[in-house]
Amino acid sequence: MDRLDRQFDFLRETDKLKQIGRQSYLADGSRKENDAEHSWHLALMAVLLSGYAEKDIDVLRVMTMVLVHDIVEIDAGDTYAYDTNGNATKSERETRAADRIFNILPEDQAEYLRSLWEEFEEQATPESAFANMLDKLQPLMLNDASGGKSWKEHGVKLGQVLNHNKNTANGSKELWEYARKNFIEPNVEKGILKE
Amino acid sequence: MDRLDRQFDFLRETDKLKQIGRQSYLADGSRKENDAEHSWHLALMAVLLSGYAEKDIDVLRVMTMVLVHDIVEIDAGDTYAYDTNGNATKSERETRAADRIFNILPEDQAEYLRSLWEEFEEQATPESAFANMLDKLQPLMLNDASGGKSWKEHGVKLGQVLNHNKNTANGSKELWEYARKNFIEPNVEKGILKE
Repeated sequence: MDRLDRQFDFLRETDKLKQIGRQSYLADGSRKENDAEHSWHLALMAVLLSGYAEKDIDVLRVMTMVLVHDIVEIDAGDTYAYDTNGNATKSERETRAADRIFNILPEDQAEYLRSLWEEFEEQATPESAFANMLDKLQPLMLNDASGGKSWKEHGVKLGQVLNHNKNTANGSKELWEYARKNFIEPNVEKGILKE
Repeated sequence: MDRLDRQFDFLRETDKLKQIGRQSYLADGSRKENDAEHSWHLALMAVLLSGYAEKDIDVLRVMTMVLVHDIVEIDAGDTYAYDTNGNATKSERETRAADRIFNILPEDQAEYLRSLWEEFEEQATPESAFANMLDKLQPLMLNDASGGKSWKEHGVKLGQVLNHNKNTANGSKELWEYARKNFIEPNVEKGILKE
């Protein structure tokens, strides 16, 4: 099949990311966001916040990584951060999804995007540490902005949030400190996140 | 005000892009897309299709440009490509929006994003020619995929589509040819786009 046909098949297939719902509400609390919106937001954060990265990062690599990091959820669905059962099977479901979806592309681009997704999951490089930090920071920001709407809905506790963020400072100590002080602590004081 | 406060104020403000509706339907026709989803899709296209650019382009610049190219629509609203009255006042409305929204950021980043938006609007550089091409190609792809749903809804004619795309080949002759052959001509043959 022609290279362009495969590229447009992939672009039509990934259009489905706009229909994969997440648990985070928009800042105004009016509805929950989807994976495509979330990925756009992370890429914009990468542009604006790269100066706070713990180590030197390739911003283009981070942006591409966050644009594709949730594409496997087209088949595997979004697994909520605090869903214990869902997280037990997440890796297997997502690997099967990656096998199908990335291989719609021409081989070189399939390998490139898949390697970026695997790098994101392994969190072993400066770029993936930063991308994972953004992926944690953005829902903290939205939860705080929406009055803790998603935390309240799921009865999330402070300890769960801190455990979920145990590697966040690896991407940027400064941004993690900012998030703790501005997005987490005020919600503990308000009694939204219970200890 | 602290630099990080301004950056997060901007990230919360631009969350509103997820609520700015466009006229293009998702590929499956189930609903119309919004500006944040559209911007994510264009950035992914920039990654995959940069090899077809008419001139050498800086992909990071194109990606950043498409991520922010519609932010002014938070205040100015989306102006449909074939809305004559709306397009007469578009430039003035969007300039006012740019003055307000980009200036939420620290000065250096406000200037950088605004200059990218102005570059996109002027279409005078290889990067902006490519970004504008993506901005035209993506709705052509979605219109075709959804059975011409938005074209039918608005009674759009072939001449309007061709006129709207008079500069599209400046970004990539090859992609414009592909779009003409795969997204436009089949819809003329089906009688969806009338001559």
